[in-house]
Amino acid sequence: MPELLFALDSARSFTDQEKVGHNRWHPDIPPVATVRPGQTFRVDCREWFDGAIHNDDSAEDVRDAPLKRVHALSGPFAVAGAEPGDLLMVDILDMGPIPQEDSGPLAGQGWGYTGIFAKANGGSFLTDQFPDAYKAIWDFKGHRATSRHIPRVSFTGIAHPGLMGTAPSASLLATWNQREGALIATAPNRVPPLALPPEPENAILGTLTGAEFDRVAAEAARTAPPRENGGNQDIKNFTVGSRVFYPVYVPGANLSVGDLHFSQGDGEITFCGGIEMGGFIDLHVDLIKNGMQTYGVAENAIFLPGNTPPQFSQWLAFSGISVTLDGEQRYLDSQLAYQRACLHAIDYLTRFGYQPEQAYLLLGAAPIEGRFSGVVDIPNSCATVYLPTEIFDFDVRPTAAGPTRIDPGPGAPKASLR
Amino acid sequence: MPELLFALDSARSFTDQEKVGHNRWHPDIPPVATVRPGQTFRVDCREWFDGAIHNDDSAEDVRDAPLKRVHALSGPFAVAGAEPGDLLMVDILDMGPIPQEDSGPLAGQGWGYTGIFAKANGGSFLTDQFPDAYKAIWDFKGHRATSRHIPRVSFTGIAHPGLMGTAPSASLLATWNQREGALIATAPNRVPPLALPPEPENAILGTLTGAEFDRVAAEAARTAPPRENGGNQDIKNFTVGSRVFYPVYVPGANLSVGDLHFSQGDGEITFCGGIEMGGFIDLHVDLIKNGMQTYGVAENAIFLPGNTPPQFSQWLAFSGISVTLDGEQRYLDSQLAYQRACLHAIDYLTRFGYQPEQAYLLLGAAPIEGRFSGVVDIPNSCATVYLPTEIFDFDVRPTAAGPTRIDPGPGAPKASLR
Amino acid sequence: MPELLFALDSARSFTDQEKVGHNRWHPDIPPVATVRPGQTFRVDCREWFDGAIHNDDSAEDVRDAPLKRVHALSGPFAVAGAEPGDLLMVDILDMGPIPQEDSGPLAGQGWGYTGIFAKANGGSFLTDQFPDAYKAIWDFKGHRATSRHIPRVSFTGIAHPGLMGTAPSASLLATWNQREGALIATAPNRVPPLALPPEPENAILGTLTGAEFDRVAAEAARTAPPRENGGNQDIKNFTVGSRVFYPVYVPGANLSVGDLHFSQGDGEITFCGGIEMGGFIDLHVDLIKNGMQTYGVAENAIFLPGNTPPQFSQWLAFSGISVTLDGEQRYLDSQLAYQRACLHAIDYLTRFGYQPEQAYLLLGAAPIEGRFSGVVDIPNSCATVYLPTEIFDFDVRPTAAGPTRIDPGPGAPKASLR
Amino acid sequence: MPELLFALDSARSFTDQEKVGHNRWHPDIPPVATVRPGQTFRVDCREWFDGAIHNDDSAEDVRDAPLKRVHALSGPFAVAGAEPGDLLMVDILDMGPIPQEDSGPLAGQGWGYTGIFAKANGGSFLTDQFPDAYKAIWDFKGHRATSRHIPRVSFTGIAHPGLMGTAPSASLLATWNQREGALIATAPNRVPPLALPPEPENAILGTLTGAEFDRVAAEAARTAPPRENGGNQDIKNFTVGSRVFYPVYVPGANLSVGDLHFSQGDGEITFCGGIEMGGFIDLHVDLIKNGMQTYGVAENAIFLPGNTPPQFSQWLAFSGISVTLDGEQRYLDSQLAYQRACLHAIDYLTRFGYQPEQAYLLLGAAPIEGRFSGVVDIPNSCATVYLPTEIFDFDVRPTAAGPTRIDPGPGAPKASLR
Repeated sequence: MPELLFALDSARSFTDQEKVGHNRWHPDIPPVATVRPGQTFRVDCREWFDGAIHNDDSAEDVRDAPLKRVHALSGPFAVAGAEPGDLLMVDILDMGPIPQEDSGPLAGQGWGYTGIFAKANGGSFLTDQFPDAYKAIWDFKGHRATSRHIPRVSFTGIAHPGLMGTAPSASLLATWNQREGALIATAPNRVPPLALPPEPENAILGTLTGAEFDRVAAEAARTAPPRENGGNQDIKNFTVGSRVFYPVYVPGANLSVGDLHFSQGDGEITFCGGIEMGGFIDLHVDLIKNGMQTYGVAENAIFLPGNTPPQFSQWLAFSGISVTLDGEQRYLDSQLAYQRACLHAIDYLTRFGYQPEQAYLLLGAAPIEGRFSGVVDIPNSCATVYLPTEIFDFDVRPTAAGPTRIDPGPGAPKASLR
Repeated sequence: MPELLFALDSARSFTDQEKVGHNRWHPDIPPVATVRPGQTFRVDCREWFDGAIHNDDSAEDVRDAPLKRVHALSGPFAVAGAEPGDLLMVDILDMGPIPQEDSGPLAGQGWGYTGIFAKANGGSFLTDQFPDAYKAIWDFKGHRATSRHIPRVSFTGIAHPGLMGTAPSASLLATWNQREGALIATAPNRVPPLALPPEPENAILGTLTGAEFDRVAAEAARTAPPRENGGNQDIKNFTVGSRVFYPVYVPGANLSVGDLHFSQGDGEITFCGGIEMGGFIDLHVDLIKNGMQTYGVAENAIFLPGNTPPQFSQWLAFSGISVTLDGEQRYLDSQLAYQRACLHAIDYLTRFGYQPEQAYLLLGAAPIEGRFSGVVDIPNSCATVYLPTEIFDFDVRPTAAGPTRIDPGPGAPKASLR
Repeated sequence: MPELLFALDSARSFTDQEKVGHNRWHPDIPPVATVRPGQTFRVDCREWFDGAIHNDDSAEDVRDAPLKRVHALSGPFAVAGAEPGDLLMVDILDMGPIPQEDSGPLAGQGWGYTGIFAKANGGSFLTDQFPDAYKAIWDFKGHRATSRHIPRVSFTGIAHPGLMGTAPSASLLATWNQREGALIATAPNRVPPLALPPEPENAILGTLTGAEFDRVAAEAARTAPPRENGGNQDIKNFTVGSRVFYPVYVPGANLSVGDLHFSQGDGEITFCGGIEMGGFIDLHVDLIKNGMQTYGVAENAIFLPGNTPPQFSQWLAFSGISVTLDGEQRYLDSQLAYQRACLHAIDYLTRFGYQPEQAYLLLGAAPIEGRFSGVVDIPNSCATVYLPTEIFDFDVRPTAAGPTRIDPGPGAPKASLR
Repeated sequence: MPELLFALDSARSFTDQEKVGHNRWHPDIPPVATVRPGQTFRVDCREWFDGAIHNDDSAEDVRDAPLKRVHALSGPFAVAGAEPGDLLMVDILDMGPIPQEDSGPLAGQGWGYTGIFAKANGGSFLTDQFPDAYKAIWDFKGHRATSRHIPRVSFTGIAHPGLMGTAPSASLLATWNQREGALIATAPNRVPPLALPPEPENAILGTLTGAEFDRVAAEAARTAPPRENGGNQDIKNFTVGSRVFYPVYVPGANLSVGDLHFSQGDGEITFCGGIEMGGFIDLHVDLIKNGMQTYGVAENAIFLPGNTPPQFSQWLAFSGISVTLDGEQRYLDSQLAYQRACLHAIDYLTRFGYQPEQAYLLLGAAPIEGRFSGVVDIPNSCATVYLPTEIFDFDVRPTAAGPTRIDPGPGAPKASLR
C-alpha cells in the first residue's frame, strides 16, 4: 500500500479526524501534506455527505440532504516545486470502496446509494418530471452492483472520483464569484437556484480558525460545479489507470480529491448519484513545468482515460431533440436534447414494468453513455443515450412479441416535501 | 447484391435520374417503390449537395454552398402494411461509397469532403471563432481516410447514414412548421438563422408537378434538423449492423435515406461534414405492429448499434464548462460546454503545429467521442471530447519533453466572404 | 473501385477465364500482372473448390470433394522491384462476397458453406468423432450470417482471406518437398494422409503448357498447409484493415491470394470451412527493402490486424487438456488439448438440443476464440475455446434452472461413405 | 471486506500460519473451513514458491527453485451441501496483491517476478533455446507493471489466479497417477521430466499428520498440471468478474486456490511466470445441483470471463508452423507451431535491441494473445501470437525506416547451472 497521507476513521465524522479536509475552494486553505513529484500516496475519501445518507428504505435523508456540507474533500496536497503555469500530472493508480470494511453505516462500507434530489432541495436533471426525492441502495459484490430497489439489473461499475482539482488563485476565485454572482442575480429566488454563492455555514476549511476562517469562508467557492481547476467534473471515464493534467494556479498546486463513485452514467443525471461511496484512492503526481503555456491548457483538465472500463458490446440507444415536452422549439440546446433522450429511455423502461423513478435511478447509476450526436442541424440538437442491454437479466430489446413484464417489487423509496 | 430499388447514375444530376428522390419532408411525396416486410433492398444515395462540392483546393464551393438544395434524399419507400402507430424496424445491412467507382467528380467516388460553413451561409458549431469557409478533401483507401489538407493523420471511418426517417403526418408537419416558425419569429433576421422555414425554391418532390408540387413545396419541412421522425440525426454510431425502430406516421411509413458519411465525430461540429459522400446502402425492413404504443416510442427513433465500429484503446480527453469565452456564466448549458471542450482540443492541437482550422476539420471528420459528463452541477455543465491518439502518426500526448512540431503543409483551403 | 487486375466471370469455371490463376506453389508460375509499390488493385477470388459445393441439403458434394483441385488462387502478382530479402507489405483495404451478385450457384453469391470432410477424404480436426461428411449452408444478410441447417444462431462474420502468400524460391520448394516427403514416408498409406505430395492431376498453373507445365506440376507444392511464405494460414484475425509483411523469395515476390472466408472460428476446425465463399479483395502493396534481415522475418508472415473485428463482450469458455478420450496421457500436446476443449463445447451445446454435428459446424464458422492457455505445466497443456454468447437467440449460459431446449430442426446434411 | 477465511501473515512461512494450506491434490486433505452456497469470503494466497524468489538482480534463486514445494495453495474450502455430480459455481469478485503492504521480501508486496526455469530444473516452453535460468522483477504501480530488467515497456496487468480447482475423488486421483505414471515410464530419466509423480518430500497437507500424512503424501497428485478438476490452468482470461463452473468429485467439493498472477501472456511460456505474486482473492460460491450431467461438464471447468480486461486496439502478430528449427516436418503439432511463433516474436524484438531473454520474459509476463489459427491444414498447424504495440514506449511496428534501437540496459539476470 502506498503511504497513507490522509486517513479517515470510519467511526468518526469528517471533521473529527486527525487531519481535516475541506468542502470549499480557496487558495488559502492550508495543505494537509506536501508530496514530491514522482511520489505515490494513498488518500482516504469520505462520501460527499459525510454519512448523512443511510442504508435504509426511506428517502427522507435524500429529501433533507444537507447541501451546505458538501463535498467532503481530502486534501489539499501541496506538490513540492509546483508553480503557477505548470501542469500537474496525476495518475490514478487504484481506487475502491473503504478497504477491509464491507458493512457499516457509511456509504463505501460494502454499499452505496443513488439519490434524486427534490426540486425544493437542489433538484435534478429531470426535476420538473421528478420533483420528489428518491433513493436506491446498491450492494457491492466485488466490482458489481445490485439493488434491492431496482430488480433484475446487475452491472460492473465504472469507478472514478467525481471530483478532483487544484486550488484556484485568488484572482481566479474572484472571477468565479463575480460571474456566478451575476448569474444568480438574474433570478435570485429561483428554486432550484441557478448557482450557489459562498456559504460560511457548514464550511470546512482544514486547520483554519478564527478570523482567517471567517474571511476564507466568506470568499470560498462552493464545490458543486466543475470549473477551470477541474473540480466536480463527474466524468465517468475518469477511471483507474487515467492520467490527468491539471493547470496549476497557486504555488504547490494544492490538489484535492473526493466524491468517489462506484459507478455512474454520463451526466450523473440524478444529481445525488452515480453510486456514491467513500473509499480510497492511490495517486502518483508529477509536473510538466510551464505546461499550461506549452500545451495550451490554461483551464479545464485534459486526461488520458484508463484502459479497463467495463466492456459492453450491445446497446439500446435513445435519441432526443431540443423541443420541450410542451412542444416549444429551442435553438440547438443539447442540454434539453439529452433530457428528452433520457425521458425516452425512462418511458421505454416503464413498458417492461419498472417504475419511472426506478428507471431514472438506474440511468444515473449504470455505465450508460450520453453523446452529443448532432449539434449543428438548426434548430434541433440531437443527443443520444446508450443503455447496455447486458445489465438486465431479461431481453430489453424491442421485438414483435412485445416486452417482458417484470415485477418492480416494492420500488424505490420516495419522500415528498412536507 | 440486393435488388436495387433506387439507382443513381453518377454522370447525371440528382433530378435527372430514372427515379427522382426528394429534399423536403411531406406526407404527400409519392413513394418511389413499395417494399414488403422482410424485404432486403439496395438504395443508391447522392451526396447531400448533389455534386456542388469539388475535389480541389479551394473552399469557394463551400462558401457558396446551395443550402436550399439539401438534402438529396433517396425514397420514399412505402412498406406494405405499415400503419400509423407501428414501429418500422430497419436493419442497415451494408453501406459504402459508390460501388465500382473510385475516381470522378462526385463525392463518394473514392473521396469525400469536410467543410466548415461560413457564418453568413449557415455557420457551424464554432462559427464565432471560425466565420469563414474551409474545406478538407479526404481520400479513401479501403475503410481508411487520409487528407492532403490535414497531414499526419489516418483513420478507419465510422460510416453511417446521416439522415434516415419516415414521413411526417400532416398534423406532425403542421406542428413542426408552427413551432419552428415561432422560433424564427423571435429573430427573423439572425445570421445564421435560428431555423429554416419551408422553401419552395429548389424543392425536389419526386414525381409531383404543377399545383400539387406548389402546395407541397410551400408546406414541406426542410431536412436540416432531426425531428420526431428521425431525420438528420447525424448519429455517428448508427453504423452498418444497426437495427433502428422508427415511428410510423403515415400509411406505408414512407422511409427515406441519404447524407451518407464515410466518417464523423460526435456532433458533426463542422456542419458541412463529417466526411460527406454518395454511395449505397442495403436495408432490410420489418414491422412491429402497434409498436409505438407497446414500447412507448412515439417519437425519435431508438436503435441497436452495430458491433463493428473501429476500435481504439487510447484517447486524449478535453473538458469544457458552460462559461463563454468572454467569461459569462451560463446555467447548465451542455451545448456551450461542448463548444468549449472542442475549442480546448483545437487549441491543444495547434501546439503541435496544426492550423486551428485543420484541427477543427479533423474533429468534424474523425471518430471522436463527445459526451455529456456532468449536467447537474450548477451552474456548470461539463462536456468532454475524446480524441483517439492512434490516428496520428506521432505522439500527441503531453509529456515533459514538450510537443512534437509537425509541418502543417499548405493547410486547409479557406474562402472568406467577398 | 481500384483497378481490377484479375477478373472472374461467375458464369464460367476457374480455368475458363480471361486470366487463369493457379492451385499449386512454384516459382515458375508466370505472373498474371505486375504492380508497382504503392499501387492499389482489386482481385476477384473464386471459392476454393471452384463451385463443387452446392447450396442444397445434401452433403454428398462435401463427401466427394475434389481435393486435388484446391485451392483456386488468384495471381501471382509480380511487384516491380521486389527482390529476395525484401519484405512485401500488403494492406487488405477491403474484401467481401462477389459484388453485385447475391444469388446464384457459386458460394459468394449471397451464401457460403461450412463442411466437415469425411475421414476417408481429408478428415477434419475431430475426424475420429465425426468420420462422415456434413455441410451447413449460410445465408449472408449484410455482414451477418444465418443457416437453415443450424437454427437459433446469427452472427457478424469476421471476414478474411484464408490464404495469401508469396512464391517460394526453388530452394525453398525443394525443402518443402523433402521434409513433407519424409513425413509421408513414415506412414504412406495413412487415412487421412499425413501430408500431400506434389500432384500433377488437376494442377492449374496459369499460362504454363506442355513440357514446362509437366515439369512444374511434378514439382509444385500443394496449397493446403501454411508454410514459410504464408500460404493457407487461415488466421481469422487477418481481416480488412490488416497490414501483413511477407518474406520475398523470388524476384517480383509473386503474391497470390484466395480461399476467402465470410467468417471462421480459430483453427478452422471443420477443415472444409469457415464459411467458404468467392468474392473480391482490394490490396495495396509496398516494399521494405532488405526487410527480412532488418526485422528478422525470414519466414512466416507477421501482421498488424485490422481494427474493426466484430465486438463481443460475453463469452462462454471451455477448457481441455492433453489427455485422449481413451484416457491416455500425452506430453504437452496443445493440438490435443484444443481438440478436447472443442469436444467439451460440442457436448455442452447438445444439452440445449443441438445435434453434435450442428455444434461442430457452428464452432468452425462462428468467430470463436481458441487460445493456448497453459503450455508448460507438465504433462498437460491447457487450451481454451471461447464462444460468444450473443450469437444465440436464447440464453446459453449455465444456470440452476437448467438449459433451454431448442428444436434442432431437420439438422445438418450428412453423407456417409458408400 | 468479505470475511477472511484463510489469513496469511507475511512475516511467517506458509506452513507457520494459523491455518495451513496444501501443495498436493488429494480427497483426504481436510477442509480449512466450510462455506455455504451463496456465501462470499476472502482468501489470502501465498506466491507459489512461498518466498523462495527474491527481489534482487540474481537468477540463482530461479535456477535453484524448490520445485517440490509448489504450489502453495489456500484451502480446501468445503461447500455445504455439495455432492459429487454437482457443479460448483465460483465468482471471482476481486483479487489483487497483498493488501496494505507495498514493500517487503514477499512477491505480492508491491512487486512480482517472472522466471525462466533452467532445463535441468523444470525447463520452459523454449528450453532448448534458453537452457539457463533467467529472472525479471516487476514493480507494481496500481494496475500497471514495469521492470528494471526489461526497459521501455509498461502495461496494465491481466490479473487472475493461475490455479483453482476442486479436490479429486479417490478414483479420479488413481486415474491420474496411473496415466501419468505410464507416461513417465516411457522415459523415466528425461530432463526435464515428462511428468511429476507423487512426491512426499516437502508435501504440505493441511492438518494431516503421522501415518495419515504419510499415506496421503504417497498418493497425492502434484499440482503442476491442469486436470479434470481445473487445477493449474493458467488461463490469463480467468480474471476478476469471471464465473467458473467446477465439477464436484467429493462431498463438499473442497475448493482450493493459489498461484496468483499480476499478469500473464497466453501459455505462461516462461513456466516460472506470468508475473507471480501473493495476494488476496474474494470468492462467492453457489451450486448447480446435478449440473455435471445436466450440462455435460464432467471434467475441465467452463467459465464466463470478466468484462474488464485491459483493452488494446493495435497488435503485432507473429505466426509459426509445425516445422522444427532443424527443419523437420511434424504433423499438425500446435504446440510446436506456437513455439515457432514465439521464437519469431523474440527474434523480431532483438532487432530493436532487446536481449533474447528479455523478449522471452516479456512474452511470458505481458498480456499477449496466443491463438490456434489453423489446426487442420496438413501437415502444418499454424499458431499466432499477438503482441500489443501500446506496451512499448517506442514504435515497434515494421517500417521502411528500420527499427528504433533501444538500450537494453544491464539486462535480465541469468544463472547457468554449475
